[in-house]
Amino acid sequence: MSLLEKTIESIPESLDEAAFNAAKDRLLNQAKPVGSLGIMEDISARLAAIKGTIDVKLTHKRIVTCAGDHGVTQEGISLFPAEVTPQMVLNFAGGGASVNVIGKHAGAVVKAADLGVNYDFDPDLPIFHKKVRHGTANFTREPAMTREQAIQSIVAGIEIVEELLAEGEVDILGTGDMGIGNTTPSSAIIAAFSGIPVEKLTGRGTGIDDAALKNKIAVIQKGLDLHKPDPKDPIDILSKVGGFEIGGLAGLVLGAAAHGIPVICDGLISTAGALIACELAPAARKYLFASHKSVEVGHKYMHDRLGLEPLIDLKFRLGEGTGAAVCMELLDLSTRILADIKTFEEVGVTSI
Amino acid sequence: MSLLEKTIESIPESLDEAAFNAAKDRLLNQAKPVGSLGIMEDISARLAAIKGTIDVKLTHKRIVTCAGDHGVTQEGISLFPAEVTPQMVLNFAGGGASVNVIGKHAGAVVKAADLGVNYDFDPDLPIFHKKVRHGTANFTREPAMTREQAIQSIVAGIEIVEELLAEGEVDILGTGDMGIGNTTPSSAIIAAFSGIPVEKLTGRGTGIDDAALKNKIAVIQKGLDLHKPDPKDPIDILSKVGGFEIGGLAGLVLGAAAHGIPVICDGLISTAGALIACELAPAARKYLFASHKSVEVGHKYMHDRLGLEPLIDLKFRLGEGTGAAVCMELLDLSTRILADIKTFEEVGVTSI
Repeated sequence: MSLLEKTIESIPESLDEAAFNAAKDRLLNQAKPVGSLGIMEDISARLAAIKGTIDVKLTHKRIVTCAGDHGVTQEGISLFPAEVTPQMVLNFAGGGASVNVIGKHAGAVVKAADLGVNYDFDPDLPIFHKKVRHGTANFTREPAMTREQAIQSIVAGIEIVEELLAEGEVDILGTGDMGIGNTTPSSAIIAAFSGIPVEKLTGRGTGIDDAALKNKIAVIQKGLDLHKPDPKDPIDILSKVGGFEIGGLAGLVLGAAAHGIPVICDGLISTAGALIACELAPAARKYLFASHKSVEVGHKYMHDRLGLEPLIDLKFRLGEGTGAAVCMELLDLSTRILADIKTFEEVGVTSI
Repeated sequence: MSLLEKTIESIPESLDEAAFNAAKDRLLNQAKPVGSLGIMEDISARLAAIKGTIDVKLTHKRIVTCAGDHGVTQEGISLFPAEVTPQMVLNFAGGGASVNVIGKHAGAVVKAADLGVNYDFDPDLPIFHKKVRHGTANFTREPAMTREQAIQSIVAGIEIVEELLAEGEVDILGTGDMGIGNTTPSSAIIAAFSGIPVEKLTGRGTGIDDAALKNKIAVIQKGLDLHKPDPKDPIDILSKVGGFEIGGLAGLVLGAAAHGIPVICDGLISTAGALIACELAPAARKYLFASHKSVEVGHKYMHDRLGLEPLIDLKFRLGEGTGAAVCMELLDLSTRILADIKTFEEVGVTSI
């Protein structure tokens, strides 16, 4: 059995029901109106079910930012030049990027991963070196990658989780992305799965204008018309209109779920990866949390399909794992809400 | 000049424009798409303008939870009995309540304040002892308090800020409330200011049913009809249909603004206090941040009137300062976003 098949098979079908019920029971008896801490209560109960305890500790937080380049940038779908992808990977490694700053605030260790950047990094650079190829092909002309390369990118994500676990404990994993042009394959992926019209799923990425947006929609439509990806075959979709970092992001979700690690996905691109993971292995969804609602219009449709409600809406449209990092603090907080807020009985407050 | 007048007068009319511009400039030049960290960028710039530096440090975080009782609970407007107010104050002092747990996660020191609880606390209990009276009068029969008592409650809030500053530094202040029945005066206050129909502004508080909600609306209407509070006179409104903790919460905002301290207000009740503060002293608004959007329907109208956008919507309806505590972490994070994310030039990334 391949590592991908083995990983998918080892994702548990159900979480710890006893811990979930104990969490619900404690939340009901805490000295506050029933349900008054809203979404935080729901999250805390799901984390309890994942971890099998009502005293969950999310001490070891990791964020992996998967990077890749995109041949489709030749079609003028992005504001920034493709050379920014490797520059930003170096920035992540140097600790000066947005995800480094927000990750540090959350107490998370951030590490980038090269899944398919069009640049040869120094092998000693402290990133995960998992390059499948120097960027995808331009999907308006040929498939973004071969089926084998698509599988290789997903497996690379799984391997990253295993390497993280070999390094030490991982209590929660956040996913993030870097790749100039990668909102284009991400919108293409949700379009391929859902059949929803491309114009409903396509946004301005880093900030393109009306004319460029119109072109971006046409580019995605052209790719879908040319390759007709099979909506029942996530790997077919990934190979035809996806990206290497998106495959890696799918692998991170599968790997985390297989090892019982809650995983929080970031914006449009990370969620495209999570979507591929959950279409391959629906059980992975139980381990998955949606961080924020991105400004990108396609994000909502991904969350709908995943059945996940994002926690916050701070008008982010950055990626890198920045939203995942912000929400990691909220997940951590939810564990304290469940474990540490006292019950009516514990503090002698009159219940109703 | 009274302390109230002196405080209002000492609130600066404008913030530090040079620091604001320096912040905007740095945000524009950071190695990320322009504005891609959304609301967090706006907040960071306002904090810079308040503090006069782009490297704001919110190290010393304080939350004050103001408590009071309400004669109007005689009208059956709340699910919980009034005895819960003092019990919860003891719970705050003991550290086991929701705001203690969330405040601790945010690195904030939480302290309760008795503005008008119908209970005699041990003078050694570690709270602010600022009792104006043992609860308000039932405003369906007589004014909640006298005009002098309304002023006294606001002054008590100002004094609390000064006592906090005498104890040590305060980089940011969060406000919270406790008082069984206090969504009723809070909805009455926004109704009195705005003239918006009471049924649009009145919610279920800790969880009353349809019949009780109908009664609550009638109770508020009766109070407004009986006393006809002057919409141009915040102290008249506070005295006729308000609460002592709401006065205290107004005083906290005024005191913080007068000392150049950013202040983040919590849910419906804290925002009612902030509203009274900002109607008395419009300049205070520059120092005020709205934390979350409460489930309580009236909250939105308060934010509209204040011209503030709440940061998050986690379906909270608890009070105590819980939403303020969650958002204090976000304000803290925003300062790191501004100061620590490197610019294109600093990290050699291609700009556009």
